[in-house]
Amino acid sequence: MEKVITIARQYGSGGREIGRKLAEAYGIPFYDNEIISRAAKETGFAEAAFEGAEDKATNSLLYSIAMGMNVYSSMDVGFSGLSLDDRIFLAQSNVIRKVAEEGPCVIVGKCADYILKERSDVVNFFISASPDFRIRRSIRIDSLPENKAAELVLKKDKSRANYYKYHSGERWDNTLNYHMSIRSDLCGIDGTVTCLKTFLDHMDK
Amino acid sequence: MEKVITIARQYGSGGREIGRKLAEAYGIPFYDNEIISRAAKETGFAEAAFEGAEDKATNSLLYSIAMGMNVYSSMDVGFSGLSLDDRIFLAQSNVIRKVAEEGPCVIVGKCADYILKERSDVVNFFISASPDFRIRRSIRIDSLPENKAAELVLKKDKSRANYYKYHSGERWDNTLNYHMSIRSDLCGIDGTVTCLKTFLDHMDK
Repeated sequence: MEKVITIARQYGSGGREIGRKLAEAYGIPFYDNEIISRAAKETGFAEAAFEGAEDKATNSLLYSIAMGMNVYSSMDVGFSGLSLDDRIFLAQSNVIRKVAEEGPCVIVGKCADYILKERSDVVNFFISASPDFRIRRSIRIDSLPENKAAELVLKKDKSRANYYKYHSGERWDNTLNYHMSIRSDLCGIDGTVTCLKTFLDHMDK
Repeated sequence: MEKVITIARQYGSGGREIGRKLAEAYGIPFYDNEIISRAAKETGFAEAAFEGAEDKATNSLLYSIAMGMNVYSSMDVGFSGLSLDDRIFLAQSNVIRKVAEEGPCVIVGKCADYILKERSDVVNFFISASPDFRIRRSIRIDSLPENKAAELVLKKDKSRANYYKYHSGERWDNTLNYHMSIRSDLCGIDGTVTCLKTFLDHMDK
């Protein structure tokens, strides 16, 4: 399996866990929100990050990779003139392009499908689930009270859709943006992983 | 596999063939555009169809099923006041509800996912493919010249999206309308059937 896999997912659908299990199944790196954000923070826009870079390099998984991004040319094209959000997105995009360049991996969230759309070796998945399933999962995994979980299920999907729309100009829920979209509540997390693997394995045939 | 399966598909994606093979795999009835349209035509709106109904019954697979629809009550609620398109849609919807009531089956096109949305035993699939794949398939299957095939790929998707929007009020390409959406050009027709079967078989676990 020589693909770079991106996963967009509804909050509470288990998309992150599905991505992690998929990465484990193929023995390839897994990059989620936190890893990408941390790597970007350490490079793209916080000048402080450039002081004592060598020390940082020792305690950051992706620092050396992320340092490969050409921050200065980005600045040349107005990097410093961008809003903080745009600078963060640009830095994260560079990290995502860099890890994809490193070889097969699984990347969750962050418009990775859009950022990598020029690559021919990328497979884009979208994971959704029923509101009930997502609320119950949010209560269990994030140990939230039911009303808070229900609120998050609504809010987070809106913010993810807006984030995608803002940066890509496209609709997050447009099925044509993805190679496979799947409901995780019908087959469960492991069953969904099996479905994605079946798709990926048949691609190689 | 006790589900009623609906398949929405882009023109040239092979969705109809995929649906037929899925129905064969489970040994359940397969209903495509032509069958639904014919059954509806024989019942819903063409008065002529009611003359010599018995003869028709002998040469129409779905006639007896379709006759089960309550045309007269439909007329009571203004059936005859509707546009021809709406009357056709209403008649086809009644046929679709009727065949779904009969048990597990595969229904291709005709907003079946929307028409059957109140049922809990329905699984909705959406099949898409790259324009290249669909143009090549259209040239091969419908033996069209390339420019005509390319034109159809554009036109038919627009008309299907408009048809869906007109009758359901929703976007045809909204991934959240489907339990699984899949690109048929990456795994091929048989590989795609295997992916759909994997999903359906895991649902029953």
